[in-house]
Amino acid sequence: MDFVNVRYVIKKPKLKNPILIEGLPGIGNVGKLAVEHLIDSVNAKKFAEIYSKDFPPQVFINTDGTITLVNNEFFYWRAKNKGQRDLILLTGDYQGLSSQGQYELVEKILDIADEFGVKEMYTLGGYGLGHDVKEPKVLCATTDKNLVKTMKKYGAVFKKNEPGGGIVGASGLLLGLGKMRGMQGTCFMGETPGYLVDPKSAKAVLKILMKITKIDLNLAALEKKAKEIEHIAHQLKEMEGLSKDKSEELKYIG
Amino acid sequence: MDFVNVRYVIKKPKLKNPILIEGLPGIGNVGKLAVEHLIDSVNAKKFAEIYSKDFPPQVFINTDGTITLVNNEFFYWRAKNKGQRDLILLTGDYQGLSSQGQYELVEKILDIADEFGVKEMYTLGGYGLGHDVKEPKVLCATTDKNLVKTMKKYGAVFKKNEPGGGIVGASGLLLGLGKMRGMQGTCFMGETPGYLVDPKSAKAVLKILMKITKIDLNLAALEKKAKEIEHIAHQLKEMEGLSKDKSEELKYIG
Amino acid sequence: MDFVNVRYVIKKPKLKNPILIEGLPGIGNVGKLAVEHLIDSVNAKKFAEIYSKDFPPQVFINTDGTITLVNNEFFYWRAKNKGQRDLILLTGDYQGLSSQGQYELVEKILDIADEFGVKEMYTLGGYGLGHDVKEPKVLCATTDKNLVKTMKKYGAVFKKNEPGGGIVGASGLLLGLGKMRGMQGTCFMGETPGYLVDPKSAKAVLKILMKITKIDLNLAALEKKAKEIEHIAHQLKEMEGLSKDKSEELKYIG
Amino acid sequence: MDFVNVRYVIKKPKLKNPILIEGLPGIGNVGKLAVEHLIDSVNAKKFAEIYSKDFPPQVFINTDGTITLVNNEFFYWRAKNKGQRDLILLTGDYQGLSSQGQYELVEKILDIADEFGVKEMYTLGGYGLGHDVKEPKVLCATTDKNLVKTMKKYGAVFKKNEPGGGIVGASGLLLGLGKMRGMQGTCFMGETPGYLVDPKSAKAVLKILMKITKIDLNLAALEKKAKEIEHIAHQLKEMEGLSKDKSEELKYIG
Repeated sequence: MDFVNVRYVIKKPKLKNPILIEGLPGIGNVGKLAVEHLIDSVNAKKFAEIYSKDFPPQVFINTDGTITLVNNEFFYWRAKNKGQRDLILLTGDYQGLSSQGQYELVEKILDIADEFGVKEMYTLGGYGLGHDVKEPKVLCATTDKNLVKTMKKYGAVFKKNEPGGGIVGASGLLLGLGKMRGMQGTCFMGETPGYLVDPKSAKAVLKILMKITKIDLNLAALEKKAKEIEHIAHQLKEMEGLSKDKSEELKYIG
Repeated sequence: MDFVNVRYVIKKPKLKNPILIEGLPGIGNVGKLAVEHLIDSVNAKKFAEIYSKDFPPQVFINTDGTITLVNNEFFYWRAKNKGQRDLILLTGDYQGLSSQGQYELVEKILDIADEFGVKEMYTLGGYGLGHDVKEPKVLCATTDKNLVKTMKKYGAVFKKNEPGGGIVGASGLLLGLGKMRGMQGTCFMGETPGYLVDPKSAKAVLKILMKITKIDLNLAALEKKAKEIEHIAHQLKEMEGLSKDKSEELKYIG
Repeated sequence: MDFVNVRYVIKKPKLKNPILIEGLPGIGNVGKLAVEHLIDSVNAKKFAEIYSKDFPPQVFINTDGTITLVNNEFFYWRAKNKGQRDLILLTGDYQGLSSQGQYELVEKILDIADEFGVKEMYTLGGYGLGHDVKEPKVLCATTDKNLVKTMKKYGAVFKKNEPGGGIVGASGLLLGLGKMRGMQGTCFMGETPGYLVDPKSAKAVLKILMKITKIDLNLAALEKKAKEIEHIAHQLKEMEGLSKDKSEELKYIG
Repeated sequence: MDFVNVRYVIKKPKLKNPILIEGLPGIGNVGKLAVEHLIDSVNAKKFAEIYSKDFPPQVFINTDGTITLVNNEFFYWRAKNKGQRDLILLTGDYQGLSSQGQYELVEKILDIADEFGVKEMYTLGGYGLGHDVKEPKVLCATTDKNLVKTMKKYGAVFKKNEPGGGIVGASGLLLGLGKMRGMQGTCFMGETPGYLVDPKSAKAVLKILMKITKIDLNLAALEKKAKEIEHIAHQLKEMEGLSKDKSEELKYIG
């Protein structure tokens, strides 16, 4: 096994000018949630797995008692209607653990993308605000200046100097290393408090992606999950509030 | 020396369709205790050592004043009776320190297993509960769905979504990477508080393994060790209890 | 992509016996500030970029919404007047993250320098004092004994056993590894409190470098930045002072 | 430059059946102090340097203002009298930072030793006790059982199960990896509190080494250093004592 390994689980599919869409774990798991919802909604088919020696040495246990080695997974979907494009979808359990591991992983993803003739990609992630957000905006960054105008049209937001720390991880690296290979790419970052997984932010990202891909998605499942998370967040806050009150009470006593 | 190195200490033994059983250090040292007891009981013979640049740069000092470089060790045992199978047993001082080191080590172990034609393996470990456990159950995960039923028959327990974090380390990785090579594998995880080495949990694991291997083991030594550990655990708790009482006393005063 | 990669963005320039001047991020960002000011002042031209798998997996977002993968950058400038020399200038976003990454990066920088026939280099950095400094001195260390006298003449200071910890990072390593290739090098370390970026210290370093390179620089921009930083430092100190007073007050109460 | 690099600074010396003696930085710097004193005393000559990408990216500044890249250094000394043997002496600024770096470094040291036909080596270090020690004993471990008796004769001490954690670092690894190459080796560990550099412990180690090498060393310089350190230790303890008294006083008040 090489440092990063690709394993096709079915015959390599023939795709026509496909778009790559990536969503790996990250802040609020926004990108992963969005791509997983997209995969489920369009019923995309898994065709390859990526294994890396820079992933944790870990297997997950499936509900039937069998194990699966942690990995990243490639899915494909073929365009159904006019205006749509074939899709390659990437999600997974982990990003690389080390800097070198991240670069190796992204280079391998781009190698696969190259084999399929990918010229355009979208990388999805979260932008952690550290506070609540009613209506999450979707920040954006691109490989090419001419894409900026297009993405604004679709509702993405460009804020000068935000995120100030740039984009860390696969979503940024795919754009940075892809650009050197002549690929165009756009990163969408859904605003998120960043404390919990954030289906609401994933929904906001998908809404823009729906316009770009001309695919109509039912977002009800994400909305339901969002409500559950909101409920949990509310409960956590109440508990925090209680313990704060208590500690304040204690101060009066002490 | 390569990153991971195998060194045969005797001529490579000829084995017939052997089973690999692994028990390296981990939670409660359950796997290591179990395999070491098995090695001692059947009087298995060491045939190879594994050295890795990802093990600590350390030698241990033997009772006779000589040193031994930290390593993993392979033993073998030849079936005596009908129904039994030849065994390859693996234990050692350490697992790999880094993710990459873990993958490299397990790949090398599987290379050796492949050379001996291993098609079936059992990896042993502990499942840390963080609290006392009267009768440790043995959780289980497998590479193949059809193994699940078999293992239940032997007394292993499958709990949905447990362990939630999957299996981390060599016991998981051997199954994950072995499965890709067409090997069947099962991981047994003995429940353990996880604070101290746990011979009681190792005993529970061996009880199941005895049924599978049709080998009759005398578990008295493990039982004796288990009682010693129980005694130590009891003493530790008393000390904790005392210091807790004291701190509570102080609270009344303060 | 190799571990460290060089990418020429224009045709390799022809330079005559050039001097290499390096200023990467470090204590007080002194070296980076100095080289960036030099690049801007002489209007040096970028000719190559260095990428490394040991840099963080990160892109920065430009003001126009496009991204740039973190890197180091080479600039060149051709001598205008008699007594001047062609320059190669190096700055960047990061140094290597790991020891090995630092060595690999510096070896690659020296490879490039070798290709241009560089025989002489200056590496710029800060020397953190941990306290305020009115007039920052510029400490110095060299590859060759005969350079010491020369640098003293230009106003650099040699203090026995300072910095006691030597020079850590690219500025030191360029000298250490360059010396083995027969290059002469000098490291200038501007004294700095080390808490904030320090344009005043960068100015002190550049004053010496101006004498060596016979290039006249307008340092007004650095002086302006220095005043801004001084203002910020003052404000921070006041805030600290206030909170200290408060805590002292509280002590009187408590 | 490879991961670990050897650079001969003079023509490779011809040595007859030399002994390797290693003392790199470690607990109490016992090994380094001992080998440095030996080098100075017999006026050994440096013949090679080792550089590693796993050493810190650092240069030290010499008293004349020039820099030296951190390294390890080989010295040699030719036997003068009957009963003496040629020596190869190894000391340096650092051990490898990572596990892999330690293994790579020690393999390279053994490669050099092999080239000179080294069959016997002594590695020197400290054994940290965490408390004061009047007369430091010298603990011992060897590659071969028959060496144990010899070393006892020279005054070294073998304590069952001590050090319990074995020997970590180059001193242990040289024995462990050297043994596999058929070299005989002994590690001497001088007892030391472990808080400060410990010339007294180095002296104890050298006293045994003097008997083995039949070299008469003047240990006055080490004794002087030992007294200085004792003085510093005393002062530190007094300061600690004072601050302890103070805090106790405060308790009475509070």
